[in-house]
Amino acid sequence: MSDKVKVAIIGAGRIGKIHADNLLRLPNAEVRAISDPLADGRLQEWARARGIGIVTQDGGEVMGDPDIDAVLICSPTDTHVSLIKLAAAAGKHIFCEKPISLDIMQTKEALEAVQAAGVKLQIGFNRRFDHNFRRVREIVQNGGIGVPHIVKITSRDPNPPSEQYIRSSGGIFMDMMIHDFDMARYVSDCEAEEVFACGSVLVNPVFERYGDVDTAVVTVRFTNGALAVIDNSRQAVYGYDQRVEVFGSGGSVSAANDYPNTAEVHNAEGVRRDKPLHFFLERYNEAYIDETRQFIQCIAENRDVTVGGGDGLQAELMALAAKWSSRLGRPVKLSEAVEMSAASCG
Amino acid sequence: MSDKVKVAIIGAGRIGKIHADNLLRLPNAEVRAISDPLADGRLQEWARARGIGIVTQDGGEVMGDPDIDAVLICSPTDTHVSLIKLAAAAGKHIFCEKPISLDIMQTKEALEAVQAAGVKLQIGFNRRFDHNFRRVREIVQNGGIGVPHIVKITSRDPNPPSEQYIRSSGGIFMDMMIHDFDMARYVSDCEAEEVFACGSVLVNPVFERYGDVDTAVVTVRFTNGALAVIDNSRQAVYGYDQRVEVFGSGGSVSAANDYPNTAEVHNAEGVRRDKPLHFFLERYNEAYIDETRQFIQCIAENRDVTVGGGDGLQAELMALAAKWSSRLGRPVKLSEAVEMSAASCG
Amino acid sequence: MSDKVKVAIIGAGRIGKIHADNLLRLPNAEVRAISDPLADGRLQEWARARGIGIVTQDGGEVMGDPDIDAVLICSPTDTHVSLIKLAAAAGKHIFCEKPISLDIMQTKEALEAVQAAGVKLQIGFNRRFDHNFRRVREIVQNGGIGVPHIVKITSRDPNPPSEQYIRSSGGIFMDMMIHDFDMARYVSDCEAEEVFACGSVLVNPVFERYGDVDTAVVTVRFTNGALAVIDNSRQAVYGYDQRVEVFGSGGSVSAANDYPNTAEVHNAEGVRRDKPLHFFLERYNEAYIDETRQFIQCIAENRDVTVGGGDGLQAELMALAAKWSSRLGRPVKLSEAVEMSAASCG
Amino acid sequence: MSDKVKVAIIGAGRIGKIHADNLLRLPNAEVRAISDPLADGRLQEWARARGIGIVTQDGGEVMGDPDIDAVLICSPTDTHVSLIKLAAAAGKHIFCEKPISLDIMQTKEALEAVQAAGVKLQIGFNRRFDHNFRRVREIVQNGGIGVPHIVKITSRDPNPPSEQYIRSSGGIFMDMMIHDFDMARYVSDCEAEEVFACGSVLVNPVFERYGDVDTAVVTVRFTNGALAVIDNSRQAVYGYDQRVEVFGSGGSVSAANDYPNTAEVHNAEGVRRDKPLHFFLERYNEAYIDETRQFIQCIAENRDVTVGGGDGLQAELMALAAKWSSRLGRPVKLSEAVEMSAASCG
Repeated sequence: MSDKVKVAIIGAGRIGKIHADNLLRLPNAEVRAISDPLADGRLQEWARARGIGIVTQDGGEVMGDPDIDAVLICSPTDTHVSLIKLAAAAGKHIFCEKPISLDIMQTKEALEAVQAAGVKLQIGFNRRFDHNFRRVREIVQNGGIGVPHIVKITSRDPNPPSEQYIRSSGGIFMDMMIHDFDMARYVSDCEAEEVFACGSVLVNPVFERYGDVDTAVVTVRFTNGALAVIDNSRQAVYGYDQRVEVFGSGGSVSAANDYPNTAEVHNAEGVRRDKPLHFFLERYNEAYIDETRQFIQCIAENRDVTVGGGDGLQAELMALAAKWSSRLGRPVKLSEAVEMSAASCG
Repeated sequence: MSDKVKVAIIGAGRIGKIHADNLLRLPNAEVRAISDPLADGRLQEWARARGIGIVTQDGGEVMGDPDIDAVLICSPTDTHVSLIKLAAAAGKHIFCEKPISLDIMQTKEALEAVQAAGVKLQIGFNRRFDHNFRRVREIVQNGGIGVPHIVKITSRDPNPPSEQYIRSSGGIFMDMMIHDFDMARYVSDCEAEEVFACGSVLVNPVFERYGDVDTAVVTVRFTNGALAVIDNSRQAVYGYDQRVEVFGSGGSVSAANDYPNTAEVHNAEGVRRDKPLHFFLERYNEAYIDETRQFIQCIAENRDVTVGGGDGLQAELMALAAKWSSRLGRPVKLSEAVEMSAASCG
Repeated sequence: MSDKVKVAIIGAGRIGKIHADNLLRLPNAEVRAISDPLADGRLQEWARARGIGIVTQDGGEVMGDPDIDAVLICSPTDTHVSLIKLAAAAGKHIFCEKPISLDIMQTKEALEAVQAAGVKLQIGFNRRFDHNFRRVREIVQNGGIGVPHIVKITSRDPNPPSEQYIRSSGGIFMDMMIHDFDMARYVSDCEAEEVFACGSVLVNPVFERYGDVDTAVVTVRFTNGALAVIDNSRQAVYGYDQRVEVFGSGGSVSAANDYPNTAEVHNAEGVRRDKPLHFFLERYNEAYIDETRQFIQCIAENRDVTVGGGDGLQAELMALAAKWSSRLGRPVKLSEAVEMSAASCG
Repeated sequence: MSDKVKVAIIGAGRIGKIHADNLLRLPNAEVRAISDPLADGRLQEWARARGIGIVTQDGGEVMGDPDIDAVLICSPTDTHVSLIKLAAAAGKHIFCEKPISLDIMQTKEALEAVQAAGVKLQIGFNRRFDHNFRRVREIVQNGGIGVPHIVKITSRDPNPPSEQYIRSSGGIFMDMMIHDFDMARYVSDCEAEEVFACGSVLVNPVFERYGDVDTAVVTVRFTNGALAVIDNSRQAVYGYDQRVEVFGSGGSVSAANDYPNTAEVHNAEGVRRDKPLHFFLERYNEAYIDETRQFIQCIAENRDVTVGGGDGLQAELMALAAKWSSRLGRPVKLSEAVEMSAASCG
């Protein structure tokens, strides 16, 4: 068994447990430990049922364990940077959920630590592993639509999160649209230059209380002149809406939603079918599995991860520019966004 | 105006009037006369508004008019044969609605008269001119699915006809499925050898009263071993259902229904869209126009019609075999069907 | 025949002739005249074949004809305003192609002349009569998706126009996207407050020569906080792409493209179907017919037109704001746009 | 761990291993043994990697093991009956792949043994657990389409099996269409009365050598007058084609194929997407998992299985009638089929 990649999960929330279960199905991974400041008897039991030997409240224990090759950081965003630094210092490969941090300077520091240590860092942009979007990218890369001109992304959640979540989410651009910023880059291989964000509070006034919006349309100008547009809503009553289109000089490719079945009813009232898959756990179930599989493979075969720290940083920059654009009511260049944040922190 | 094809409509029912209106839109046709035993003031008015000069109760008047090049026979089925003979004798080209007759012997006589006179005869298999089915045939002819193995046709009406209609319709196979028998030949270029019909009365007991069925599934074996299956229902509550699939050695091609619009609603209950086009007038509107356009063109350019008397006969033979099969509860060869009918008449 | 609405076509270009042919099919309209500065023998012949009595190079002749109830202005954009004023002064109802003019001040003057004369003015936003978009609006109006939050419009032409056309088109926003600005209002019943336009030259450098772009994404903020996004391209190699989606508190409704047929081929390479209808003549054929039918009906029944001068003005304002936004690189309010234009003219 | 259902796999072929892997993922099942006459070191290794303790060439060992609660019979068809009898005698619950046997008398004997022993018997009609077909049944059961009138099933394999397989398969009706016979009953809750089978050899002449066909269309008349039609082909070059439609008095419901992704490309040639999922392992992956999950649950909770021996028998009867019908060229009643077989054996 010594050829298995031994991993620890940091943070035993929903996503941490999902990653654990997915890793447990991989023949070349071993989940050796799980740490969480709130680890209790229930977690002990959960871990025992899965043969996970170590359950601890102390993340440091995990970092110090020489038998652990890699950590999956699934704890709250404000802990990511320090955990990345610790893991890098301990020579462990890192998988970190998005965003790396809400502070671009800290994100950069974390990436420097990773680079200095020479460990791998994969960012949790799970949608890159979705069967639909991966196929879209493949087709674009194979020249199936020529040179990309317009990227269109729709991303809407079935329900808004809780007020508590909203308060510390970092706002719709950093919390939700960051996935779409990464998607825009993923499917087009273009890099953003400028962002214009237009937001409204239409779903629930609670968002206003935290300077946030629940509905947003963001335009992106890429360095090569191509354009992207992303629309987000915190509430689509018909369920998770995750679509992408890339239009180019040679045609277009689009990915529609997934549905729980293909059954279609024709009756006197019309034609109907069931709603799309309800939320990310249903829609991205396979993508999550594939995401961890590839992380483990990259470690096992000492290959570069396919979605690294630079991708995390770039998406954060776009989110940051969108945040400023929304605040200032004008387009904001990615280069400006860093200065603005530096200035506003100083 | 002397280069226009001058036509007369025989039978001023719904379909006769549709053909008249479609002909009136053609630059190279002139509707010179309309005859109907029940022609009255209302028909006079209808004709006047369209510039149709002659309205008569006497079909003979039309046949005797040397200025008329062609007649469209839109009268009841039991008048078709004698009208075809009259028209052929008068040297007029003929368009005749399906079926030519309910008696295969008489149909043959009519075709002989047509051949002897050297006039053109087009049968009203309007579906051959439908944009969807024409494209299916094109693809099959271009080798797009290789050699046909299985033909599947669904053909369902939105509502059953009146009892009066049912009584004299000739039964579901001769009245309704005859279109599908022709379609099976049209899309595959295969010829039927044997037919097995399985029918039930599930929609309305009135059909039983006339020895008819309202629901039927018919299997066709073609001479080359390919198979076809046709299903008919007299009542699809969601509207007209007209679909075709041809499956072969190189793939399959299918044609779905037409819809009034592409609007699709996603809401909390599911996804829905409007029902298909309701009935043949909506679905085959363009096909009817094209059907008459091509009839006129074939006359104007002295070309062969694309759906002639032989096609009418072949579809009738298939319908006849289906009728006998349904009655006898066993597969019936087309060759048998003629004998059976001869015997049963004798 | 005195109860027919008698109309004259001003401008015998492609669209003028289409309207003429569509009017000729209406039972309650009479095309009495067609005028064009370049009217020649060919046009005479064209008119004679259709029974159009008057063909003239002199638009004044038409305006002075007391037997003409209405004019359809299908001449170049720079003639619209003076023709509208002339027609209004002559007491004739007016159908005018979009845009009314390229100068918002002149457009306003034209509308004032119309109002003063008490004649009807319908603007040629033909897409409002499209079966798909009309159904989308109907569903939104019936509350089928709740309160609109996001409107998404895709509008792409199959091929860029000629250089000559580009030169005098008024630019992509005024020439092409103006239809989409109207559509955004039509499907949502929302009014625009601010526009942000992002354009690029990606299809053909010729657009740059005229200060124009060929690819554009425009974000619209409505007065009620709802958002819209429109993307345009001058070249979609797969044909005309005309789609709309309205997303709201109760769901979403979207309209897809129309296709020439429903035939779908499955073979060893994949699944394929034919491209969408190629361009506006195919896609909006029925919409053009319905547009003129409704114009004539509104006159015959003395009802208000459904798409009037105010709609023309509003779409122009949005186009103007988009033009300035694209030039200035920042969002522009509709109110600003008027001042900017006034200033730049002064 | 004593509350887990302990099972043995009989037959270590492809499907046996799939079931084993699916069982290993269930929290309430334990795969205790696997037996196969050809068990070797490779199988030992395969079992060890999965923690399956017992690997044996002797099926009797498994039957004699008091710790085993249930067996999954995945061995060749000709071993099913004797294994069912042995397992029943040993008091073990049984999951048996379809068909139970190729001899209806033996199938009945096996079912009697099961009944006498009071053990559970589930038949491997995996398609009942498919998300699409389950939803179709649900909708029919909930009255979504009224009373079923016509059932249509398409079932085509991507490639014909090997000659060796064909030789002992029992023929297309017993080997392949048996699934569809079960499906027809499953989605409609109707019972077959008579079957008419029409087959051809169009894919590969090898089928003829074994008195088999590769292309077949079968019509079923249910006792209540409803009709079904099933078409099978041994070779659909575009992949696995598995579709169902139920048409009834209140509408219709249909299930289309599953695809690997929703990506759709529009280019100058047309619109295309990837082929359907290639074969049963891809299409029914989840169905297989659910099938075993439900088998285990029925045992754990002592509930009746949802697809039992009676279902297996009924599908065999339909297949048998189809076989005779194909041979005799006439419709065959299920009641006749048994006599015919008895006679032909005698």
